Amino acid sequence: MHIGLVGLGKMGGNMRARLREKGVEVTGYDPNPDVTDVASLEDLVAALPSPKVVWVMVPSGQITRDTVASLAPLLGEGDLVIEGGNSKWTDDEKNAALLAERGTGYVDCGVSGGVWGRENGYGLMAGGDSANIDLAMPVFDALRPEGPREEGFAHAGEVGAGHYAKMVHNGIEYGLMHAYAEGYELLEAKGIITDVPAVFKAWTRGTVVRSWLLDLLVHALEEDPKLAKLRGYASDSGEGRWTLEQAIENAVPMPVLAAALFARFASRQEDSPSIKAVAALRNQFGGHAVTEAGPTSGTGSVS
Amino acid sequence: MHIGLVGLGKMGGNMRARLREKGVEVTGYDPNPDVTDVASLEDLVAALPSPKVVWVMVPSGQITRDTVASLAPLLGEGDLVIEGGNSKWTDDEKNAALLAERGTGYVDCGVSGGVWGRENGYGLMAGGDSANIDLAMPVFDALRPEGPREEGFAHAGEVGAGHYAKMVHNGIEYGLMHAYAEGYELLEAKGIITDVPAVFKAWTRGTVVRSWLLDLLVHALEEDPKLAKLRGYASDSGEGRWTLEQAIENAVPMPVLAAALFARFASRQEDSPSIKAVAALRNQFGGHAVTEAGPTSGTGSVS
Amino acid sequence: MHIGLVGLGKMGGNMRARLREKGVEVTGYDPNPDVTDVASLEDLVAALPSPKVVWVMVPSGQITRDTVASLAPLLGEGDLVIEGGNSKWTDDEKNAALLAERGTGYVDCGVSGGVWGRENGYGLMAGGDSANIDLAMPVFDALRPEGPREEGFAHAGEVGAGHYAKMVHNGIEYGLMHAYAEGYELLEAKGIITDVPAVFKAWTRGTVVRSWLLDLLVHALEEDPKLAKLRGYASDSGEGRWTLEQAIENAVPMPVLAAALFARFASRQEDSPSIKAVAALRNQFGGHAVTEAGPTSGTGSVS
Amino acid sequence: MHIGLVGLGKMGGNMRARLREKGVEVTGYDPNPDVTDVASLEDLVAALPSPKVVWVMVPSGQITRDTVASLAPLLGEGDLVIEGGNSKWTDDEKNAALLAERGTGYVDCGVSGGVWGRENGYGLMAGGDSANIDLAMPVFDALRPEGPREEGFAHAGEVGAGHYAKMVHNGIEYGLMHAYAEGYELLEAKGIITDVPAVFKAWTRGTVVRSWLLDLLVHALEEDPKLAKLRGYASDSGEGRWTLEQAIENAVPMPVLAAALFARFASRQEDSPSIKAVAALRNQFGGHAVTEAGPTSGTGSVS
Repeated sequence: MHIGLVGLGKMGGNMRARLREKGVEVTGYDPNPDVTDVASLEDLVAALPSPKVVWVMVPSGQITRDTVASLAPLLGEGDLVIEGGNSKWTDDEKNAALLAERGTGYVDCGVSGGVWGRENGYGLMAGGDSANIDLAMPVFDALRPEGPREEGFAHAGEVGAGHYAKMVHNGIEYGLMHAYAEGYELLEAKGIITDVPAVFKAWTRGTVVRSWLLDLLVHALEEDPKLAKLRGYASDSGEGRWTLEQAIENAVPMPVLAAALFARFASRQEDSPSIKAVAALRNQFGGHAVTEAGPTSGTGSVS
Repeated sequence: MHIGLVGLGKMGGNMRARLREKGVEVTGYDPNPDVTDVASLEDLVAALPSPKVVWVMVPSGQITRDTVASLAPLLGEGDLVIEGGNSKWTDDEKNAALLAERGTGYVDCGVSGGVWGRENGYGLMAGGDSANIDLAMPVFDALRPEGPREEGFAHAGEVGAGHYAKMVHNGIEYGLMHAYAEGYELLEAKGIITDVPAVFKAWTRGTVVRSWLLDLLVHALEEDPKLAKLRGYASDSGEGRWTLEQAIENAVPMPVLAAALFARFASRQEDSPSIKAVAALRNQFGGHAVTEAGPTSGTGSVS
Repeated sequence: MHIGLVGLGKMGGNMRARLREKGVEVTGYDPNPDVTDVASLEDLVAALPSPKVVWVMVPSGQITRDTVASLAPLLGEGDLVIEGGNSKWTDDEKNAALLAERGTGYVDCGVSGGVWGRENGYGLMAGGDSANIDLAMPVFDALRPEGPREEGFAHAGEVGAGHYAKMVHNGIEYGLMHAYAEGYELLEAKGIITDVPAVFKAWTRGTVVRSWLLDLLVHALEEDPKLAKLRGYASDSGEGRWTLEQAIENAVPMPVLAAALFARFASRQEDSPSIKAVAALRNQFGGHAVTEAGPTSGTGSVS
Repeated sequence: MHIGLVGLGKMGGNMRARLREKGVEVTGYDPNPDVTDVASLEDLVAALPSPKVVWVMVPSGQITRDTVASLAPLLGEGDLVIEGGNSKWTDDEKNAALLAERGTGYVDCGVSGGVWGRENGYGLMAGGDSANIDLAMPVFDALRPEGPREEGFAHAGEVGAGHYAKMVHNGIEYGLMHAYAEGYELLEAKGIITDVPAVFKAWTRGTVVRSWLLDLLVHALEEDPKLAKLRGYASDSGEGRWTLEQAIENAVPMPVLAAALFARFASRQEDSPSIKAVAALRNQFGGHAVTEAGPTSGTGSVS
């Protein structure tokens, strides 16, 4: 198998390395001359045997759609594009339709595993026609973790289903992370635990809450036991929002996800306008700011 | 009617004024010599006709229990203590038992209305025996707003029911305030509204969301249209926590209250330990801090 | 002033009545021959003096856009369409652009007050150019509650701002309703309150939580003190979802709204798939179904 | 090492088996004659060498406290009781004080792992004095999973810290479970995924969300792919409530836990009183029940 790989950043670069280790020949293209194998998309496509298979691994959004659009005229009947970024599943139908004009197939693939995937393998969820999935299977088998195929790869459904599954995967991830985070905060706040990182570490084997995320949190706490080098600031990268929008559209209650996402929103505010409004109300109805009462002096806390 | 009133702070002082305007004779005691009518609790009790009725309006908690304990030996058969603070309903049974040792009655009364109560009257929820409620009715009638009695006063149940009702009243209040606050924040964030305070003001008549709290928010926004003089910091005074504890004990889902209360907790944190843990996890699995990707360069946003 | 009014259902019919009582001449059109004043939209437009002002009050969504599209060719330079339904604010720009092709103006107007508006007046939030707002002002003045104009009407901003303000109004309404609802549930669950409806009624004057929604809840509880005739089933009509989507888009935490909306979603499920998954997990890790332990017999509750 | 074990139910029975496999001699007592090794607590204590170490593994709550009280007079200076149930940490101080009267030591130990612990080992969090922890270490080493001690055992702090850590562990578990559950519900609701169980299975290797709970969910979905044999009904066993109470007491926002817990509460209701109140309000202000509007007929959805 010999494929093209567009995008050799943190994810794409690691994937190229893993694919090569697993015996898949890879020609990579990136605008960064330090990492690219070829000078242009044209050169990349020219280097591939037919049917040409090109994996696109660039930042999600407009840049992904532009990359697919640039590839479309370079490919033809029977070729295949696999889009592996954290793209919105609604882009997939458009990408597939564009490529279908020249008979080129399209598969969307959610890829999980982060920087650890090079070594551990990546969890993969793919959407598309079975023929295209089959064509790409040697690539999936090289990227996914060792073990039974079904424990690291799913053909999730038609075009879009791969990214949809990855979106929900990330939505779940928001909740999981925040669940551990709340527990961490309470243990630190209570002060009854002598060594909070040791308790998290003790959970890594045997317990109900053991997980890879827990292992990562233990690792972070070993490096910085009080998380003193970090600020309480967390970005969100799209999938959490999209999942919550889907919850709304499908009338599915997702309070855990909403809580986790809103906590990230709040973390990025200098000050909370909502709480300013609450404070304004408290001032209005009860003069809550004043708390000078002495022994058996009248209550200042009124409502 | 002639009653004693212990505690002449913001609430008690206003209540004394309203009672006197409504023709109830009041002897007030407060440790602050500038506001007290008598020099001691003993003098206060001595000044009252029998059956002696004493309204306690001091800050909730230990100080209220201490005041009731100080009154207990001064009162006797047929006398009555009305406890009007924002006390926890579980204190009421103890207060009532202590006073019952000498035949003194006890009524707990939730009082709502804040500093505006002097003019508008106070909403009242009382708990206790009917005979004691009847004894105190002239006081309740003077304190409550004009209009039908049942629109400003309820005999909520036995001892404790008054404070329980007031606790839930305040729990509801948390949710109401935060609902307006969220709407305020969104309108400000979106930027589509020319004059956000004008929109809130336009809601004060005719709309479904009109309320006294809305009137107060309009008033606050007229004084400070961007709430620029306030910090996003809000205390909580007990009833919200107690209500949520009751929700847990009675297996009642109260997500609105929980959200409003948690937002206040978060407003008082310098930094969020939970979000620090989330940020730590994000650093571990994907190097999320790095976002330097250029056109068609590899995605840095991985998970 | 003489205007056209398209849509004479529950809202439109009441608005026609109020406008006429306030001295605004109204020609109404509705496909229902029992209520319409004219036989067609063409007849309606023909009956109006120039500049022609037509208020559209039909169900939101496609039907509103279709109605505006039908009116567009019938109107011309200097005429005005006011769209008063619960439409999504993103429709307004499209409507305005369509009408602008022939020089016809457009104002979107959020209308609150429900079936009570005929008597009490409606709270109004309008979006559009000042000239168009001024042209429609006699209509707004007739519809809004009596009292100062700014307490029942706001010129919220450009086209779309009126519906945006109404959307957020309804989003707030979700939170307010659920805050009262949670308090109601807890009071009923606890059982300490002798007469729960009486407590709600006692809150209608003087208290911090007094509001029009509270008045309505009191009314409902007077008709049905245990709400025994109702099922715990609540629809949602779009604005709550749109508001939450806007919260996501603008990174505004709105946990109160989310909680209220999700509770409605859940109310419409026969059974909760989420909780089935939770139950499945509990069965897997601990056999939580089994609870037959006797005195000092081993714990069955494990995790 | 030879210890006594009180309680040979699902957990205790498995623990006895694991301890014996690992070379710890165990004399077990249970009121169930089919499983007990001795006829009474007295016989159990009599069978042990000094210092006598007794592990109590009975259902939490009063029965645990009673068991400790029954053991107290049978033990003496230098003996040790280890309480391993899901007890509230506030019980531990009382238990310790009772045993201390005769010089007997006390360790509380949170035990996680469920029915799988016999094979995998149990995650352990212990609270107490170092000397007592050291005395019990051979037992902890036999019970915990193989591998480094600190990955399956923590000396969490003084008496109570073990159960506190276990309580928070279970609080986290609520959030983790509900995060997966929400994702499951959305994937099922959307219908874009051909085989939802296959997607969950594909997440078990390589992905960010891989965990033991995920493995269990995959197992459950393999047995019952639509969870058709389950009802959406989930109990809660105390620790989630206690953790949320601690969140309130320590002013720690825990919205994820609250959401997960409230969803379980709601799952056990025949009907939602909160939503009945919401429905009552909707009926009052807008006649929301009626939705008979035809084309361009007036909107029935008002507010």
